[in-house]
Amino acid sequence: MKIAAFAGGVGGAKLAHGLAQVLPPQDLTVIVNTGDDFIHFGLTICPDLDTVCYTLAGLADPQTGWGRIDESYRAFESLKTLGGPGWFRLGDLDLGTHLERTRLQKEGVQLSTITEQFCRHWGVRTRVLPVSNDPIPTRVYTDEGELAFQEYFVQRKCEVKVEGFRFDGVEKSSPAPGVLEAIQEAELLIFCPSNPWVSIDPILAVPGIREAVASRRVIAVSPIIAGQTVKGPAAKMYADFGIQPSALAVARHYSSKKTGGILSGFILDQKDHEDEKDIAALGIRTLVTDILIPTAIERRRLAEEVLNFGKLLV
Amino acid sequence: MKIAAFAGGVGGAKLAHGLAQVLPPQDLTVIVNTGDDFIHFGLTICPDLDTVCYTLAGLADPQTGWGRIDESYRAFESLKTLGGPGWFRLGDLDLGTHLERTRLQKEGVQLSTITEQFCRHWGVRTRVLPVSNDPIPTRVYTDEGELAFQEYFVQRKCEVKVEGFRFDGVEKSSPAPGVLEAIQEAELLIFCPSNPWVSIDPILAVPGIREAVASRRVIAVSPIIAGQTVKGPAAKMYADFGIQPSALAVARHYSSKKTGGILSGFILDQKDHEDEKDIAALGIRTLVTDILIPTAIERRRLAEEVLNFGKLLV
Repeated sequence: MKIAAFAGGVGGAKLAHGLAQVLPPQDLTVIVNTGDDFIHFGLTICPDLDTVCYTLAGLADPQTGWGRIDESYRAFESLKTLGGPGWFRLGDLDLGTHLERTRLQKEGVQLSTITEQFCRHWGVRTRVLPVSNDPIPTRVYTDEGELAFQEYFVQRKCEVKVEGFRFDGVEKSSPAPGVLEAIQEAELLIFCPSNPWVSIDPILAVPGIREAVASRRVIAVSPIIAGQTVKGPAAKMYADFGIQPSALAVARHYSSKKTGGILSGFILDQKDHEDEKDIAALGIRTLVTDILIPTAIERRRLAEEVLNFGKLLV
Repeated sequence: MKIAAFAGGVGGAKLAHGLAQVLPPQDLTVIVNTGDDFIHFGLTICPDLDTVCYTLAGLADPQTGWGRIDESYRAFESLKTLGGPGWFRLGDLDLGTHLERTRLQKEGVQLSTITEQFCRHWGVRTRVLPVSNDPIPTRVYTDEGELAFQEYFVQRKCEVKVEGFRFDGVEKSSPAPGVLEAIQEAELLIFCPSNPWVSIDPILAVPGIREAVASRRVIAVSPIIAGQTVKGPAAKMYADFGIQPSALAVARHYSSKKTGGILSGFILDQKDHEDEKDIAALGIRTLVTDILIPTAIERRRLAEEVLNFGKLLV
């Protein structure tokens, strides 16, 4: 069964890791959010893309889920000695990725080609695609004005109240080569347990993707368990918008008019079983299981459940 | 006695270190070559400037004379894993400098201001000025075509035959703020034992500097001992040009029409005492002493000798 998975950061990377254990490489494409990419110290930094690749390569820090295992921070400590900004912690090994990516971009190589090359060097056999080679930086409207995503997320630690988002330049962006084909060829599309607002929505906002998705069977895995996220600000964002954060809220998000009512199936945690009836009432098939997947074994188990659930829907 | 010293890389940094031990901070300005600056991985790298600052700060690697003591290469190893270019070895601590400098430049801060800030953070009290805030990249004409300086120096290890140099854009460059004033106020100008062709010449090529230098007493310290350089390609460059590398050749270089006959005094090594008569015949006063200065104590001793010799000429 050919699968395309949409992923953002840590949660998305974990399910992608599970799927990569179960599926032959040629049957899985992971399409990754680039809305959180930014330029820092002149370097192109792609946190979601790197989190997915590091996780698939077995290079991710198991404690944080992002960044590199056995990381050091000598360059970062050195620049802080010079009064440099300390709000975005840069690991030495991670810096190597940003340096080489920036060098290749300055030579005119596209992000999707760079990602393919990096995956080959890291031994990642699953195809990982940035959603677009065009920058689509997420801008966050807050009660303190508009912020760049990493300013909101890392520098301000999500402490300001969110009022909305835009993905700068997304209307003029194009899907990266292979993205539309991967969606069109997929028998099943999976929205990984990623932030609906700032991980999955920016992917859907790239022209052509929403239309391609509309013709597919889509399963989403809830990024919210018992009203909370394992990682990241999705629950806080719902609260900022005056919505009770829940599996139901996520299912509603993906089945709203705005996102096109694209959901065929929804997977939620056992802790949220009370939401099941309301989600079913939206015309969405449900699977209730354990969706907390810290380890490789649990990721594999959830991936198998997702695929089996998908087969029922196809 | 107010001193301005022109310096390039390791040799220049060593004498600057000696002078900084002897002179009160307000009496010494070190004006540093920027012709070897280049952009690598999107970062601005200023090898000569950093070598001078690291040396004055006590942060330089005592083995190499350049780079940082207790350096590591984790970012560099990481980018090499991705197929990145390995010809210019980048240390983690050193990277911190390049990252913060690049960040500040992108905010519009001038190189001279950045250098002043960095020196303050590193505890360097001597004033260090890049010769110009405008890029003046050294281009090397070789028998294999024109190369950027670091391509010639590091990537090709000076193995190609040099036919000439140019400093790209130098005719439109301006001295950095404070450079002309430092030269005009100096009772003595010192050309450190740096490469005449690619360390001192680019400084002299910045419009206004040669004229300012012409009105000053100038002492040069030979970068060549017994036909060889301690470090760097100066001797090989002379040979490429068909000139026997020697203290005499350096003295001739600085007293040629092209450089304006600017030399009042010349300091050469005891090993080169046979050159003394020919240098004196050029109308240049000479001092023969031990100019090999690997340690802080020897640097201080040579600095004192240079200053005493200078007092004789004033």
